[in-house]
Amino acid sequence: MILIKLGGSVITDKSVPLSFSKDVVYKMGEAIYGLSESEPVILVHGGGSFGHYYSVQYDMHTKPRRYSLDGFAIVRNSMVKLNSLILDVLAQCGLRTYCCPPSVLVYSNDAPYHDGSITNKYNAIPERVQELQTIAKSGMCPVLYGDAMWHKDKMSYILSGDVIMSMLSEMLHPRLAVFTMDVDGLYTSMESKKIIPKVDAQRLAEFNITDDTQKNDVTGGMVRKVRAATEISSNGVDVFFVNGKKPDRLTNILHNKYAGTYFSSD
Amino acid sequence: MILIKLGGSVITDKSVPLSFSKDVVYKMGEAIYGLSESEPVILVHGGGSFGHYYSVQYDMHTKPRRYSLDGFAIVRNSMVKLNSLILDVLAQCGLRTYCCPPSVLVYSNDAPYHDGSITNKYNAIPERVQELQTIAKSGMCPVLYGDAMWHKDKMSYILSGDVIMSMLSEMLHPRLAVFTMDVDGLYTSMESKKIIPKVDAQRLAEFNITDDTQKNDVTGGMVRKVRAATEISSNGVDVFFVNGKKPDRLTNILHNKYAGTYFSSD
Repeated sequence: MILIKLGGSVITDKSVPLSFSKDVVYKMGEAIYGLSESEPVILVHGGGSFGHYYSVQYDMHTKPRRYSLDGFAIVRNSMVKLNSLILDVLAQCGLRTYCCPPSVLVYSNDAPYHDGSITNKYNAIPERVQELQTIAKSGMCPVLYGDAMWHKDKMSYILSGDVIMSMLSEMLHPRLAVFTMDVDGLYTSMESKKIIPKVDAQRLAEFNITDDTQKNDVTGGMVRKVRAATEISSNGVDVFFVNGKKPDRLTNILHNKYAGTYFSSD
Repeated sequence: MILIKLGGSVITDKSVPLSFSKDVVYKMGEAIYGLSESEPVILVHGGGSFGHYYSVQYDMHTKPRRYSLDGFAIVRNSMVKLNSLILDVLAQCGLRTYCCPPSVLVYSNDAPYHDGSITNKYNAIPERVQELQTIAKSGMCPVLYGDAMWHKDKMSYILSGDVIMSMLSEMLHPRLAVFTMDVDGLYTSMESKKIIPKVDAQRLAEFNITDDTQKNDVTGGMVRKVRAATEISSNGVDVFFVNGKKPDRLTNILHNKYAGTYFSSD
């Protein structure tokens, strides 16, 4: 099974509110359809110029707090809208999608896991996450996304798509976790734009991480992604950073060709 | 707390696929906003010419079965689309919506309720349903909808908005459960078009139920609604059938005026 994140910077133009990059998503969808013919696929998408844009506007973050309830509604609604656009395009590519908003998978403080026990650091409902795998193996393509989530007591928080990738990786052990982005991979530096093709745990500790944040980005850009990649590979799952605007590189995963940055879990 | 169903025949033109009746929804939204200023509101909407239309096309029903997985995807995606359109309009009316797809609230055979115990006939997750009430009391307006749901083993089923109304009524005991429709209420007969203004349990047993099904309607039209009304009022919750295209009648709920059919739970 392969997990693929459709990065917010790929599926939208993050500098233009509510802009959906339909052609880019379509081409990625075609590549993903090709992959899905060989193995189950689960997709996660980011918020881009929909959820991210509004969460920045309303100063909402990943830590639960009494953020503006107007903002909470606006961010959540914008993600329904983006998700609907994505589902449409993926359907055109032949993918039989299963829409799964993250509220289905995680419990909240107001709706704890039955006896109040904590399942894991993600507050994930184990049965629901396992069910996703069953659904994917049945020929459907689950589609999840980062979202604004209810916590308790008028508090909300942002659950990012990157954290969802970590959660699913830890709980489902896909053979690969792919992060599509609008750059070719992890650069050694912003100046050289030289891609690091392969990273192992030792290498990761050695180099400087370039913080590739845009002004509108609430969840920390490339730093967050490298953090997620580190976490995921430390859980025994390989990670691949690839340019989503170059969909052939997605297709080439089938041929074990990785034009991007490959994080080995060994 | 008041529960309101936005009937599929009101929010869409059920004979025209993917037709959204934006103006009607807007006017209802204004009335609902008025109600929400006095008490918490939870909304449920039907599938109309989105989910209903496609579930008929793919011959999908409320009983779990190995229906077409293509159909399952198409129905589910169409509901995301309709829900997004509704959320947009309700936001324009000032409502601070909280999108809650029914998969958040019910467990499946693949994702049972923790220890496999059965909570109730709706397979509802009690903590999640209670959380909705907390969210509504916090100034948000939860919006749920009928949907295509995963069961297990490539089986799916249709969970209708009417059943969701029954479920929420039984578990949350709103002061009133309102069903908006495109007629003035329950007729004594199709010929007379005379509205029955008030129904008690005894009366319900006495008259002939007019089956107001359209060709595209999968969940049984008026028969299903009366069945839901009967069930809800037998659980101690009053029910009101009202014409959603006459939104003043929704507003008049505030003034205890009920121009439609009122099912008394006494």
